[in-house]
Amino acid sequence: MIYLDNAATTLHKPPEVGQAMLRALNTVGNPSRGTHDSALQASSVVYSARKKLARYFNCPRPDHVIFTQNATHALNLAICGAIPRGSHVLSTVLEHNSVLRPLYRMEDASEITLDLVRADAKGNLRAADFAARITPQTRAIVCTHASNLTGNVTPIEEIGALCRSHGLLFIVDASQTAGCIPIDCQAMGIDILCFTGHKGLMGPQGTGGLCIRPGVTVDPVLVGGSGVQSYRRTQPEEYPTHLEAGTLNSHGIAGLSAALDVLERLGSEVYAQEHRLMRRFYEGVRDIEGVTVYGDCDAPLHTGVVALNIRDYDSNEVADELAISFDIATRSGAHCAPMMHQALGTTERGAVRFSFGYYNTPEEVDRAIDAVRQLAR
Amino acid sequence: MIYLDNAATTLHKPPEVGQAMLRALNTVGNPSRGTHDSALQASSVVYSARKKLARYFNCPRPDHVIFTQNATHALNLAICGAIPRGSHVLSTVLEHNSVLRPLYRMEDASEITLDLVRADAKGNLRAADFAARITPQTRAIVCTHASNLTGNVTPIEEIGALCRSHGLLFIVDASQTAGCIPIDCQAMGIDILCFTGHKGLMGPQGTGGLCIRPGVTVDPVLVGGSGVQSYRRTQPEEYPTHLEAGTLNSHGIAGLSAALDVLERLGSEVYAQEHRLMRRFYEGVRDIEGVTVYGDCDAPLHTGVVALNIRDYDSNEVADELAISFDIATRSGAHCAPMMHQALGTTERGAVRFSFGYYNTPEEVDRAIDAVRQLAR
Repeated sequence: MIYLDNAATTLHKPPEVGQAMLRALNTVGNPSRGTHDSALQASSVVYSARKKLARYFNCPRPDHVIFTQNATHALNLAICGAIPRGSHVLSTVLEHNSVLRPLYRMEDASEITLDLVRADAKGNLRAADFAARITPQTRAIVCTHASNLTGNVTPIEEIGALCRSHGLLFIVDASQTAGCIPIDCQAMGIDILCFTGHKGLMGPQGTGGLCIRPGVTVDPVLVGGSGVQSYRRTQPEEYPTHLEAGTLNSHGIAGLSAALDVLERLGSEVYAQEHRLMRRFYEGVRDIEGVTVYGDCDAPLHTGVVALNIRDYDSNEVADELAISFDIATRSGAHCAPMMHQALGTTERGAVRFSFGYYNTPEEVDRAIDAVRQLAR
Repeated sequence: MIYLDNAATTLHKPPEVGQAMLRALNTVGNPSRGTHDSALQASSVVYSARKKLARYFNCPRPDHVIFTQNATHALNLAICGAIPRGSHVLSTVLEHNSVLRPLYRMEDASEITLDLVRADAKGNLRAADFAARITPQTRAIVCTHASNLTGNVTPIEEIGALCRSHGLLFIVDASQTAGCIPIDCQAMGIDILCFTGHKGLMGPQGTGGLCIRPGVTVDPVLVGGSGVQSYRRTQPEEYPTHLEAGTLNSHGIAGLSAALDVLERLGSEVYAQEHRLMRRFYEGVRDIEGVTVYGDCDAPLHTGVVALNIRDYDSNEVADELAISFDIATRSGAHCAPMMHQALGTTERGAVRFSFGYYNTPEEVDRAIDAVRQLAR
């Protein structure tokens, strides 16, 4: 199988990831529960991963790196736990349902008012469009770092500067970029970064989290055992415990930690490789008659994603055909990005998303191009 | 190291667990995301685990088995998502903070009124004490299946019958029993069972969930991507999607699924072995001068837990000494069970919990008895 669904989850993990998980499975106890060797080893595995993530995203404090099951949980914590009730909130049509649904829920409960910034015809956002919609009631901007449908990267640094100058909370969904596009929380003015471990970071499923700027308050959505301050009626106030009720997935976190070592070693080659593969595919398909490519693959920064449709075919049928006749795994349909499909006029038929990862090869790209060409005939 | 902290997490997993996780790590995509082979394989791994759990706990429908990161998240979903606002709720002094803190939070927000049923001197609950506290406003009972501190098992079946006869929602925390004490959701009248995967079920960390009786409504606490019905503003209504926003931990769930196969093969031998080890230890320490054992280790049903103190020593010092001088891992302090310690009069010093698992040996028990004897001298 040629796996081109890396934007959903990366399938090929560095071998170090599985090794670290197995080692953890057989040696670590419950982190922050007890002081015997295996509990301490668990704490050490988890703390080491916090340190690596803090360094990787330039978050000033490792104890402000919070682990969750996935980016969706991280986004729920950030959105429901940090946006003041009564706020006007700006978000964008590029967002995934993991951002939209928590915001809609707050809007439907009259806890916030919400405006979604539109994209241009290529699916790009402009910082000026955010600026134009800020009102005296605006308190927060929630924005993805890249569209999961088009691969377009958003002007996070400019939006971050806008947030700083207007005193707005800035929440960034890095699900599509973490591990691929460099992220610097401090330089980009990000208050809360939400990430997943199983996509670009090449870690296992069941991992993800938040990096919180010191000084930013996030109220817990879930409460429970903390292993410390057990006689309090409420969750301890200190991060990370404040937001980490219950046993962490130390086994998964050990795998993510190993993946971060690999990413550090590979450095900028990850983005370079993914970008090369994306460009190779884009250049191979853009001129095929009957193929419509969405998004802005010519932008200097772009994730490893190319979304397209072939003639007037339904995207699900194309993806099924790619899977059955060509053994190529892509993703069709709505991609949990309803507003982006609305903006592109693809609500009915969806789109076929090809998403390339570091471990894909130029040969795989060429076979995908050839498959598209055959289907377009 | 002699690992006697199995009530915090089981350290020795069947080898099949790690093998299944590795296999999943390298072969499965994102469940419910896409229709290509690896996505379908992920869905199949997850669905197969749902079926096994439904059978294991006698939950009538596999699609009513919901996966979460841990039991704490499951309990938050159950408590915050299913208990009607304005209810009077009964719970118990045996509960872990994963039950108490969500309930306290609702109480503090005037969403519920709360009564905690007391235990007798041995730490046992009586169903009659629940019956006596039911008022016309009572809508739910939340009760652990066993104390994580004493190992005492609660009369779940009687409390379930009470709930049925009074039309109350019955939420059970099976963190300490799942995998050890048989659980039959239907026979026990359980509306929502909350379990963790990494303790008695011998699966990896990052797994847990709920079994929901058909007809019981649980509102989602976390919302987001569902992979289906992407154009809805709200989470889909059908279980399991209703409560499973974001990518599941398929890698961990694959491990849990393998553990369930092992448990099915071992059958009642798991409980028999844990109970034998617990009894051997209890009989070895109960008459040592200066040793106080808590709970009711003579009850016909009891988990693999024995909690004790030695003379007037602080429990943390004893556990540290056990770890350093005897290489024995136990758990001291409050065990996230503040009300149980209050009931036992051990708030100040805590207690030392020895918790035995299926993979412990009689020789390890004897060395632990010997260590207690030496420390008591």
